[in-house]
Amino acid sequence: MLKFELLATDPATTTPEGSYLGSHARRGRLTLNHGVVQTPIFMPVGTYGTVKGVMPRSLEEMGAQIILGNTFHLWMRPGTEVISQFGGLHDFEKWDKPILTDSGGFQVWSLGEMRKISEEGVKFSSPVNGDKLFLTPEISMQIQRALNSDIAMQFDECTPYLSVEPKTKGQVTTEREARDSMELSLRWAKRCQAEMDRLENPNALFGIVQGGMFEHLRDESLAGLEELDFPGIAVGGLSVGEPKEHMMRVLQHVGPKLPKHKPHYLMGVGTPEDLIAGVQNGIDMFDCVMPTRNARNGTLFSRFGDLKIRNARHKTDKQPLDETCTCHACAGTSGVSWANGGRDGFSRAYLHHLDRCGEMLGPMLASIHNLHYYLNLMQEVRDALDAGRFGAFVKQFHADRARGV
Amino acid sequence: MLKFELLATDPATTTPEGSYLGSHARRGRLTLNHGVVQTPIFMPVGTYGTVKGVMPRSLEEMGAQIILGNTFHLWMRPGTEVISQFGGLHDFEKWDKPILTDSGGFQVWSLGEMRKISEEGVKFSSPVNGDKLFLTPEISMQIQRALNSDIAMQFDECTPYLSVEPKTKGQVTTEREARDSMELSLRWAKRCQAEMDRLENPNALFGIVQGGMFEHLRDESLAGLEELDFPGIAVGGLSVGEPKEHMMRVLQHVGPKLPKHKPHYLMGVGTPEDLIAGVQNGIDMFDCVMPTRNARNGTLFSRFGDLKIRNARHKTDKQPLDETCTCHACAGTSGVSWANGGRDGFSRAYLHHLDRCGEMLGPMLASIHNLHYYLNLMQEVRDALDAGRFGAFVKQFHADRARGV
Repeated sequence: MLKFELLATDPATTTPEGSYLGSHARRGRLTLNHGVVQTPIFMPVGTYGTVKGVMPRSLEEMGAQIILGNTFHLWMRPGTEVISQFGGLHDFEKWDKPILTDSGGFQVWSLGEMRKISEEGVKFSSPVNGDKLFLTPEISMQIQRALNSDIAMQFDECTPYLSVEPKTKGQVTTEREARDSMELSLRWAKRCQAEMDRLENPNALFGIVQGGMFEHLRDESLAGLEELDFPGIAVGGLSVGEPKEHMMRVLQHVGPKLPKHKPHYLMGVGTPEDLIAGVQNGIDMFDCVMPTRNARNGTLFSRFGDLKIRNARHKTDKQPLDETCTCHACAGTSGVSWANGGRDGFSRAYLHHLDRCGEMLGPMLASIHNLHYYLNLMQEVRDALDAGRFGAFVKQFHADRARGV
Repeated sequence: MLKFELLATDPATTTPEGSYLGSHARRGRLTLNHGVVQTPIFMPVGTYGTVKGVMPRSLEEMGAQIILGNTFHLWMRPGTEVISQFGGLHDFEKWDKPILTDSGGFQVWSLGEMRKISEEGVKFSSPVNGDKLFLTPEISMQIQRALNSDIAMQFDECTPYLSVEPKTKGQVTTEREARDSMELSLRWAKRCQAEMDRLENPNALFGIVQGGMFEHLRDESLAGLEELDFPGIAVGGLSVGEPKEHMMRVLQHVGPKLPKHKPHYLMGVGTPEDLIAGVQNGIDMFDCVMPTRNARNGTLFSRFGDLKIRNARHKTDKQPLDETCTCHACAGTSGVSWANGGRDGFSRAYLHHLDRCGEMLGPMLASIHNLHYYLNLMQEVRDALDAGRFGAFVKQFHADRARGV
């Protein structure tokens, strides 16, 4: 089940203040088996059935509408036989809103030389216990069926920017290699679709555009997927080590060509600036480990730039991380931001102290803050699109981020 | 400021069901500068200004009325100059209910051969950066003034069960050694009181009964403290490595002799069974790191005994940790226990999985559960004392704990 409604776009306008060229940004509403998702949206990553360091109730409180699970990791631990007993991932991890699962393709690709790819699938050794394992498009679909995710992803090969094969390691992927890889992913897409049907999976399956850094291969990939008519389309193989200008080039080429009436998902991207660029190029859905991983490393996002909590300058600072933020870390139980006079939030000095002492509460509060920042950014994007002032919003976003904390 | 009201006791009774001998258990109400504490009470330990892995709001939700801070640790990090800027520990750690701080005596004692005790105080090297430091009764009072804890503890020497001095290491402390140590603590008690007055600290100062495993020394210590007329009395130097029967012997001797109209605090104790024994012997206040430390090691308390979440038997178990528990881990956001039909809690299978994957959410939920168990146990003790059925409660407590999970 998937329904996608386009609610607003970002047209060119001419006002007394000047002309605005518009963008490919879209405001949408996605209905899935476990609920409705307002787009554009950021999806927190819950690899092992938990968004690291964050309670499900905190995710709800910060407005998370859909979270991710990683098929490969959940297959390893706890295994599908455990999750099947719970009727899927929702009841196991106590999250009753929508879930998207990846296919496991990216994780087996990341194993590098430890895995061997053939037409049939990927042979590899379990990083957990060394068992010889085989992951195919069909098996990926079977696992995702057991997880009962609202959105399953096709099993694909993530074309690397630099080769990880023993013979060509470190070399930039050639057009030939990118084509072979993209065509393999297309054949796998078809097998995924067939298996999804055979399993009578009531959820939605997304196809993934591959083709490396080559625009014409991206076009061929998209055309192939459109023949299969997936209900949603993702862009994969970006943010995989390529220089930023290549990512932007491919995004600007592919984003606007994605089918208008379907949701568009940019996989594994990225910084706040990347998300805004994605929205400008027609992306509706994002996921990234950056907010939670950076939180655990003491790098905090804020409206006015990023902040390293380990820095000694925060030692006695009574301000919260972000004076405009209403997250539990910055605004406490009242939810009133510092800028609006709230004084219930935790100070930079306290967070600095927690970090210095290696106290768990540090990454707990930091993870809440960073995820809230990402989710709120997307809320502001939606509000701006609803109000027809997305261009002005983007201008303000960049000015604010450049101000500094 | 301290007011202590005795609300109920546990008298001997004769009913058609049989005779009950009564106990020294007391139900009380303690009023401090930051609020009222219903006793008997367990106080979660927040060493570095955070109860490890638990948000202040979670502590409030589980009914924590007063928490601890460790003077020694907070002196090392972040230091009094930081906490002074916040006007004390309450605003720094965002906890607006009462706080008790220890004196630092136990921690410098724990440094073993790294410290040197004299009449004046204790010389030692900072375990954080190696700085030569000197802690005296006066300095302890000055730090606790800066922390602005509702209850400050006198600086004392914790008499060890086995000697840690180079010459006598590992030998059971002699009567002579225990006497010298106890008398030193008494002299320090007087100095603490004088410094507390000089600083015009508006909070309460507790004296600490020492004397090792010797009943007559405990009596002398208590008599000395009573001359100084502290508003509250603690029992220290128990649960410091002695066999359990020695602890019980001293507790049973000292507890009932403590002044009736003052609150009684048993320091650093202990298991759920220890807490019940403490209450039976007239103790009103307890603290211990056991619930949070055990939580991080995967040992969970429950009404029906303790549980090791790492054990493979939990792999597919859909039950919560404790079917009668209403904590967030066991009963989720609804707060309805499994036994009452609630199904919002996290399963043993999920907690087992989190532990196996080393996910932060595991110790987060386990810490909430274990603290809730301790706090709820004290709530049940208070309810039983209010209802005049403490004897029956204790019987049921032991029967339940023996049942097994």
